[in-house]
Amino acid sequence: MGRRWNGWGDESYIKEVPAHGERLIHSVIGETHALTDATLESVMAQVPASRLPAHPLVVTAAEDRVRHARGQSFPDWLAMRSGDFGVFPDGVAYPETSSQVRELLDYAVEHDVEVIPYGGGTSVAGHITPLASQRAILTIDLGRMNQLMELNEESQIATFGAGTPGPLVESQLRARGYTLGHFPQSWELSTIGGWVASRSSGQQSLRYGRIEQMFAGGRMETLLGTMDIPTIPASSAGPDMREITMGMEGRMGIFTEVKVRVTRMAEEERFFVVFMPNWQAAKTAVRELVQNKVPMSMMRVSNAKEAKTHLHLGTQEKQFKLLDRFLRLMGMGDERCMLTYGVTGTKYQNKTSLKQIRKVLKSHGGVGGPLANIMGSIWSHGRFKFPYLRETTWTRGIAVDTLETSTDWDNIDQLMADVESALETALRSDGEEVMVFTHLSHMYTQGSSIYTTYFFRCADSYEETLERWRKLKNKASSVIARGRATISHQHGVGKDHAPYLPAEKGALGMRVLNTLVQDFDPQQRMNPGTLLEKSNAGNTAEHAAKKAQQEAAESVVG
Amino acid sequence: MGRRWNGWGDESYIKEVPAHGERLIHSVIGETHALTDATLESVMAQVPASRLPAHPLVVTAAEDRVRHARGQSFPDWLAMRSGDFGVFPDGVAYPETSSQVRELLDYAVEHDVEVIPYGGGTSVAGHITPLASQRAILTIDLGRMNQLMELNEESQIATFGAGTPGPLVESQLRARGYTLGHFPQSWELSTIGGWVASRSSGQQSLRYGRIEQMFAGGRMETLLGTMDIPTIPASSAGPDMREITMGMEGRMGIFTEVKVRVTRMAEEERFFVVFMPNWQAAKTAVRELVQNKVPMSMMRVSNAKEAKTHLHLGTQEKQFKLLDRFLRLMGMGDERCMLTYGVTGTKYQNKTSLKQIRKVLKSHGGVGGPLANIMGSIWSHGRFKFPYLRETTWTRGIAVDTLETSTDWDNIDQLMADVESALETALRSDGEEVMVFTHLSHMYTQGSSIYTTYFFRCADSYEETLERWRKLKNKASSVIARGRATISHQHGVGKDHAPYLPAEKGALGMRVLNTLVQDFDPQQRMNPGTLLEKSNAGNTAEHAAKKAQQEAAESVVG
Repeated sequence: MGRRWNGWGDESYIKEVPAHGERLIHSVIGETHALTDATLESVMAQVPASRLPAHPLVVTAAEDRVRHARGQSFPDWLAMRSGDFGVFPDGVAYPETSSQVRELLDYAVEHDVEVIPYGGGTSVAGHITPLASQRAILTIDLGRMNQLMELNEESQIATFGAGTPGPLVESQLRARGYTLGHFPQSWELSTIGGWVASRSSGQQSLRYGRIEQMFAGGRMETLLGTMDIPTIPASSAGPDMREITMGMEGRMGIFTEVKVRVTRMAEEERFFVVFMPNWQAAKTAVRELVQNKVPMSMMRVSNAKEAKTHLHLGTQEKQFKLLDRFLRLMGMGDERCMLTYGVTGTKYQNKTSLKQIRKVLKSHGGVGGPLANIMGSIWSHGRFKFPYLRETTWTRGIAVDTLETSTDWDNIDQLMADVESALETALRSDGEEVMVFTHLSHMYTQGSSIYTTYFFRCADSYEETLERWRKLKNKASSVIARGRATISHQHGVGKDHAPYLPAEKGALGMRVLNTLVQDFDPQQRMNPGTLLEKSNAGNTAEHAAKKAQQEAAESVVG
Repeated sequence: MGRRWNGWGDESYIKEVPAHGERLIHSVIGETHALTDATLESVMAQVPASRLPAHPLVVTAAEDRVRHARGQSFPDWLAMRSGDFGVFPDGVAYPETSSQVRELLDYAVEHDVEVIPYGGGTSVAGHITPLASQRAILTIDLGRMNQLMELNEESQIATFGAGTPGPLVESQLRARGYTLGHFPQSWELSTIGGWVASRSSGQQSLRYGRIEQMFAGGRMETLLGTMDIPTIPASSAGPDMREITMGMEGRMGIFTEVKVRVTRMAEEERFFVVFMPNWQAAKTAVRELVQNKVPMSMMRVSNAKEAKTHLHLGTQEKQFKLLDRFLRLMGMGDERCMLTYGVTGTKYQNKTSLKQIRKVLKSHGGVGGPLANIMGSIWSHGRFKFPYLRETTWTRGIAVDTLETSTDWDNIDQLMADVESALETALRSDGEEVMVFTHLSHMYTQGSSIYTTYFFRCADSYEETLERWRKLKNKASSVIARGRATISHQHGVGKDHAPYLPAEKGALGMRVLNTLVQDFDPQQRMNPGTLLEKSNAGNTAEHAAKKAQQEAAESVVG
């Protein structure tokens, strides 16, 4: 596969957008015009001389530096498309062992270098984007540490190199009859070390848990030395080092080996899509199922706006009209929502789960029928393809981004409405409409994640387009920060969410994080500006934007 | 209920030991002679003048100070029985609100006082036992903060005062149709705040999880101010403050309010006991069930020695002989093990679980029949009565203690054998035999807890009896510390396990804990010596013992 240098995924894959889908978007946001993309050559020509002293593991070629300069956040996307990168790392290293990572950390200390750990480069929150610095910046790409190093079948624990991406995690396990079961939407590119470092969650978290439940131990290289976290099933002996290192996003150290709890491949896995008459019915049904502990592997509820959009983007017009007529015949009007769910286990387990699920869905007016199975299968085949949508809409001048949070059940409706409304109205003063829709996709007895997607028009320039995004992001993030919610349920903090972290953690929580980072890395050499804001950000443009975000966040906290 | 001042639980309850049970113990450890108990009056007479300045919330009466001086560890037990307490707190406060706890912390800072948080006083690892100090010591008993303060039925989150003991947690929830489902063996006395502070686990962790999975947030009063941890279902925004505060055992602060995830009372709950032909069959069966994710609420496997002992202690001789004959007819000889399990849920869920469970148990030679149900019911009625056994055996001069750990499945047999053998041989040089047996009671896909009980003879003096215990505890703890295991799966660290913590956490893990405690409490005012050893322990006798333990632990680590 050839990986796109300035967008998502495999160059050979293009996600088609049906004409009636595009018309639907335009009917909300108006006609759109594309911006011009920069070429890789023009960007490579901008790369300045490296400030890094020579080292056998460090590559300073322009293309390596361009390809490691940005992740997949919306600002990253604009940088890659406009060619206006701002900052490049001074070099990239591709270590193959923990001891080479140690060697690189020693080199960084010796030569006063900043270090950014890089997994799949899929961050949507600025984790791996370098900030301008007086010091040279080294990106450590763990992609060559991609092997299943050990599999203990009795204890069902697998050890992987931290740079192993989703497909290589699963294929190496599948060859032995096992699965990890961690399927974030970024799965094709994101890595097991990145999942741990940023606490990700996968689509089948209902069966397999979040990465927190899978992470059994491993090795982290820090500036103070190697930290080996043993695999112990559970312990009451003080706070768990797994929980303290997970989510540190490279600030305490770099994971080089990750041990995870794996599961034997299930005998059977099935996905279904049903339609629910309205939001309350859909939400109540999934809450009931998760609170009654019915074994399932995933649930997702698209609100009416998302159901409508997805049906337009996922079907041809003729198919859509047939389905729409059928659903209306069944009494499902414009308020209908879409509920996708999956069961994974033995055939017997799935059969008994399905019996319970269908009873609950039916009691809330769910309609599935023969379509449920077919649409479930379509969902499962396209489950990692959504990120490719940005590529397609971009060529039409349609910008798309997502944001996500989680909150308790009693707050779901209010927060979803507030986030959607913040986005829908954020650009009204500029005369711009925004198309917004939401789903719940990670269910807990206590609450759920909320995942919102929004389309807006590219402006006439890159700068103005970025400005539109900033308004949208700030408004929605401020709503989340004051909404009994997390600034990120599954994407991490990175640089984009760092200003909002104090609202979630509180003063003493921030003190805990700062104290640990300060102790492990007093020079702020490890991924500075990520998770915790850099005290003296060098890049002034970036700094001004941060400052504005911070003020918004503070007004929320205060 | 009148609570025993020098032992476990309700004064009116006595656990009888059948004659053939006592004979079995004596057949291993020999004839025994009881030691003489001190009276409460004689201990009260020893209590020195309080060093605490007057405060309206602080009580300095001798009986309060005696009743808060010790927990339920074996050394605590000997202290309470001999009357040789060593150190008493200088006073006890019974706050009724978070703000009163704050007030007490301010008082402690102002008057240079050490603070020990006290829940149910059930620690078996020395958490609440004061160390001798130049500073006055105040024990804060949270027992008056025992109310269900709020129940959010939609999000299934309950807020409790941190001092609420197990029975009051459950009765207040049951009145509303809910359960927490946390049932440690100490449940009758231990409190929700203590469970969180020391990361406890209950008998039905297979359904409800450990306290880590239940703890949704709450309030902790620290010397730096109040830390409110919000209820968020899940977050990728950096390390989770719940995980950082849980298990801190009072070193960072005192939990005053605890929010927990609750569950609607199940339609049905059933327990069963079956016999398995041998250890390998029993262990393999429970591993298969948990790794296949069959929904259950508890499993416990007693090894052959425990099965034999429990049947002798739990039945009359005639009953035992009938059962033994039946089992031998079924081909179950001396190697037979006992497997207790439970299902909790809707009737339909339980039916489908039981179908899967019985199939697996049968495939490994399990025998239950009509007895399974009756014995399961007997287990569930006696489930919190085991701690009363110490009271009964003590009057015969039989000392009993337990220790527990957890490890991965591939290490279970080796570690169990090593711990049992360390205990069985620990007193051989003194010509003493020890009776040892083990069960697994908390199952994870990765491994299991190991819970070992041992009986030994009281010596002719309290000092010598304590010395015997020290040898036993040190030998077994050293085996655990070098055995890919935790020094405690469910009892916490306290003071007794603190010397072994470095073997589990490693140098950098210990650095993390020390850094946080140092930042929150630079004067080591909060529960000093618990979790992390006190740098300059004052009590010389205690100190010498610790030193010996530490050296043992270090030889293990090194």
